[in-house]
Amino acid sequence: MKLSELGEDRLLARLLPLLPIGSGVITAAGDDCAIVQPPDRGNLLVLKSDCLVEKVHFELSADPARVGWKAMMRPLSDFAAVSAVPQFALITLIVSGKTSLTWVENLYRGLRRAASRFKVSIVGGETSDTQGPVAISVSVSGSVEKRRLVTRHGGKIGDVLFVTGRLGGALHGRHLRFIPRIEESRWLTGKFSVHAMMDLSDGLGTDLPRLARASGVGFAIDKNALPLASGSTVQSAISDGEDYELLFAVSRHGQRHLEKSWHKRFPKLALTCIGNLTSKIKHQTLPSGYVHF
Amino acid sequence: MKLSELGEDRLLARLLPLLPIGSGVITAAGDDCAIVQPPDRGNLLVLKSDCLVEKVHFELSADPARVGWKAMMRPLSDFAAVSAVPQFALITLIVSGKTSLTWVENLYRGLRRAASRFKVSIVGGETSDTQGPVAISVSVSGSVEKRRLVTRHGGKIGDVLFVTGRLGGALHGRHLRFIPRIEESRWLTGKFSVHAMMDLSDGLGTDLPRLARASGVGFAIDKNALPLASGSTVQSAISDGEDYELLFAVSRHGQRHLEKSWHKRFPKLALTCIGNLTSKIKHQTLPSGYVHF
Repeated sequence: MKLSELGEDRLLARLLPLLPIGSGVITAAGDDCAIVQPPDRGNLLVLKSDCLVEKVHFELSADPARVGWKAMMRPLSDFAAVSAVPQFALITLIVSGKTSLTWVENLYRGLRRAASRFKVSIVGGETSDTQGPVAISVSVSGSVEKRRLVTRHGGKIGDVLFVTGRLGGALHGRHLRFIPRIEESRWLTGKFSVHAMMDLSDGLGTDLPRLARASGVGFAIDKNALPLASGSTVQSAISDGEDYELLFAVSRHGQRHLEKSWHKRFPKLALTCIGNLTSKIKHQTLPSGYVHF
Repeated sequence: MKLSELGEDRLLARLLPLLPIGSGVITAAGDDCAIVQPPDRGNLLVLKSDCLVEKVHFELSADPARVGWKAMMRPLSDFAAVSAVPQFALITLIVSGKTSLTWVENLYRGLRRAASRFKVSIVGGETSDTQGPVAISVSVSGSVEKRRLVTRHGGKIGDVLFVTGRLGGALHGRHLRFIPRIEESRWLTGKFSVHAMMDLSDGLGTDLPRLARASGVGFAIDKNALPLASGSTVQSAISDGEDYELLFAVSRHGQRHLEKSWHKRFPKLALTCIGNLTSKIKHQTLPSGYVHF
């Protein structure tokens, strides 16, 4: 069935029962606004939105459940980047009346599965018609304790740089099924002093210079130390993007202890020291990752 | 200059200095997430996103500053609907590389002007390429005191129905320059017991049945009492949509006092009693307003 035969109210009636709603939700999808009671008062409010656009980020031939998964997990990866806990999501779906109901329902199935994985409630959103490509924007709010907030700004000269997992070649499929490193990020800030952190979405070659610039330092990496995904090269590990792994900087004094604790806690997920932060003069040039326009 | 000549980072460098940032903002646009300190702890968190799509909600020939104004004011109107105070906004801009930088800068000028009007900080967002129409999604968070929250659900049989302003014909231009009724809504819930409220975005003919359905009641309106915008007919007042006026239900006992206080406080803005809520059996049928797909 095409959406144009169904109409907006009936589409919403089909989709809303699919949405995960946790405790603390007072009004959700269907009213003018989502109204929620944040469980942890006094923490910082964290906000992020992100979008996927057909023909830019995915093709209509891709499994819509995986597209939905990715649309939700991308902003959640930014929560991992700052060590925050995501709580509530709004979905904006821009789609033409020619789209099939099944496609949209499967998209929501992926959105829901991803949200549930991290106990995120989908509390509302907006649907709109378009004459062009499908676009899905997901906007997430959550919180972080002041003392556990990590940004890109706190890196110091001499810090060691770590990345989680393996880099490169994500576009062969991993980009549609990745798991944001929220659990790992929360564990890190619960146990260690992380100076600066971000998630790798545009590729190490674009993202690492952003972290260094934000911290006002330079960087030096050992390209031979990069943890390559199977079938990937150093070049693709640097510039492919869509890895959604964590890049973070910690004092070199705690390096050994961190590595040992990590391998005990996350035995299946690689943690690799790839280099360190340096004075600004020694800035190393890397081939760029992905940049829009 | 075309966006494709400029690149994403340089586009952001042009746009970010234009954004209003209020107190309580810890990291804003440019980091992985926006991190903010909500000023009023213990209140409810309110979330809303809304989008405008080229060729559906506006044409590229429209003044981009007015499009930006509308993109921000639409979700803010939903804050008025629940009597909440908007605080932080995220912008998702989906736009092709062929779009001119001037167009995008003027769009942001409108977004900024609208946000500033209600002291909303624009704290982040996302830009993406597209091969299709321009789309702008604005996601706003804010708060409301528990005792001042109004939803669509609390209408009671016998309540009188009020609308603010004048209805109909908004698409001749008013839809690009309307002012959400936040001030009026906050005043109302500060002084009166409002049982149910919403903003009129899809037209009284679509929105009033939604409010009645949510409250589990029927309604009866006097079509001759509808406050018509200049040049508008009863039919267009019911079905044009995009009025962004408040529709609300209060006990009939306070009606006179409310009307008197309103005219003193808002002498330039009409407040009109258009009918009342009834038992479900007496449900009146209205021609529909605007519905997507």
